[in-house]
Amino acid sequence: MELSSWCGKEAIIGYLGPHGTYSEEVAFRLYNKDQVSFKTYSSIDMAIKAVESGEVSQGIVPVENSLEGSVNVTLDILAHEVNLYIRKEVIWPVRHNLLVKEHWDDVKIIVSHPQALAQCRHNLRRLYPDAELRAMNSTADAATLVASGVENYAAVGSQSAGALYNLQTMAGDIQDSSTNCTRFIVLGDSPIDTHSLSDPCKTSVVCKMNGERPGSLCEILQEFSRRNVNLTRIESRPARTGMGNYIFFFDMDGSMENNSVRSAVEAVKEKSLWFKSFGSYPICTL
Amino acid sequence: MELSSWCGKEAIIGYLGPHGTYSEEVAFRLYNKDQVSFKTYSSIDMAIKAVESGEVSQGIVPVENSLEGSVNVTLDILAHEVNLYIRKEVIWPVRHNLLVKEHWDDVKIIVSHPQALAQCRHNLRRLYPDAELRAMNSTADAATLVASGVENYAAVGSQSAGALYNLQTMAGDIQDSSTNCTRFIVLGDSPIDTHSLSDPCKTSVVCKMNGERPGSLCEILQEFSRRNVNLTRIESRPARTGMGNYIFFFDMDGSMENNSVRSAVEAVKEKSLWFKSFGSYPICTL
Repeated sequence: MELSSWCGKEAIIGYLGPHGTYSEEVAFRLYNKDQVSFKTYSSIDMAIKAVESGEVSQGIVPVENSLEGSVNVTLDILAHEVNLYIRKEVIWPVRHNLLVKEHWDDVKIIVSHPQALAQCRHNLRRLYPDAELRAMNSTADAATLVASGVENYAAVGSQSAGALYNLQTMAGDIQDSSTNCTRFIVLGDSPIDTHSLSDPCKTSVVCKMNGERPGSLCEILQEFSRRNVNLTRIESRPARTGMGNYIFFFDMDGSMENNSVRSAVEAVKEKSLWFKSFGSYPICTL
Repeated sequence: MELSSWCGKEAIIGYLGPHGTYSEEVAFRLYNKDQVSFKTYSSIDMAIKAVESGEVSQGIVPVENSLEGSVNVTLDILAHEVNLYIRKEVIWPVRHNLLVKEHWDDVKIIVSHPQALAQCRHNLRRLYPDAELRAMNSTADAATLVASGVENYAAVGSQSAGALYNLQTMAGDIQDSSTNCTRFIVLGDSPIDTHSLSDPCKTSVVCKMNGERPGSLCEILQEFSRRNVNLTRIESRPARTGMGNYIFFFDMDGSMENNSVRSAVEAVKEKSLWFKSFGSYPICTL
């Protein structure tokens, strides 16, 4: 990824740590370790705000999982707390493993990030019907705990977390769905120059419409459909102004260089009470 | 709540435990302890499936928070894993407190359910900038841990959890938003007889449309707007058939007794690849 333009300073890439997270796997695949340095953050919140403050040049955070849906904290901070742009989207296939310090006869407690546990819920219930599933802050925290040697504990995590923490794989590929993917986004403080974009690419916006009137979302959607702009995703999140008030995120195929996309986005902006663009960006499948 | 029709057996109400959760507060407000018995479950998943299996007559689960958005596990299980109906909706104002065993000079670790921590994120960062926020399975689990006396720990939870576990309130009303509410739903294995419903009430459905065509969601929304049916909520969730495929939940004002609502719902069903109704139900604000 091109980072040479970043103010002449050394490029620093931020992501959700500690070491061994899926975010780290993505960071190491996207960037050359000889050209950038990396910095881990203990929450998605902090990783995003480090881009806003200029502490890092770009940040990598998860935004959606094909089974579990949106990563709400990412959407909420992008909408309400920072002014950042999406510079790349990465689709990452998720492969979970049950990691142990030694092969216990009886696995009693299974620890991981709540979303990783949710993604293996059926398989874990089938394999270990009596085990308790316990939430932790990250898959890497879970691996650290299991690596400390507590008896009858197991962690759900990546192969690289297993290797990093010297754990054995008691069961591999325990994710419930073989099509399970996570979408990560790379965030920066400026949008990509759309002239440089080639397909496939996407454009993302968020807006708040007048929800008092029936049909206001429908009118917004018509701006896309009448121009044949394909929405790849619509996600509602609380507007934070009380129950029943929402903002809507729209992802669409194509960049702002495309006349239909640009005209639809301008019409939506015109009809919105509040509007924000995250820019246009390339899609990358690893 | 009317439970006498439940097969002549004693009515049992299931909810997310352990004792001291917000779900329990709602259960105790909705039902008379002399007329029903209660059963706690260690996950939302299990509480819902206990209704499906007949182990309990009705189940109370959270479905949405005004700050944090949908409770995804509730939506996903209702869509994919059970055939249940919504019999009541309850709006519950959320009031969080910082609970401690004794007034520590230094709060180092703050534990709670991830959603409760998220709902107090700003206040906690302001009050205890150096404290680590640590996820647990429930607010009650967090209160139990803090009640065990571990030094410099605090839990985010309800006043009733504080009372139940003999904890002191170090800071009250620490929720970031004073309009913060959680919507709970009461689930049963049969729909409410809509003749008996008076306003305010709602109807909920979920469907999957042909997402290959631009504008298919727009066409569905037009079925509601052209009949002046007010959608109170639209929520997309992964269809679990791969990245980019979604199902949509619609909540609307009015019951199936209303001609416009019934006709819109029938038109949506006709246009959907897959469709499920959760019935019509009364709204109750406690």
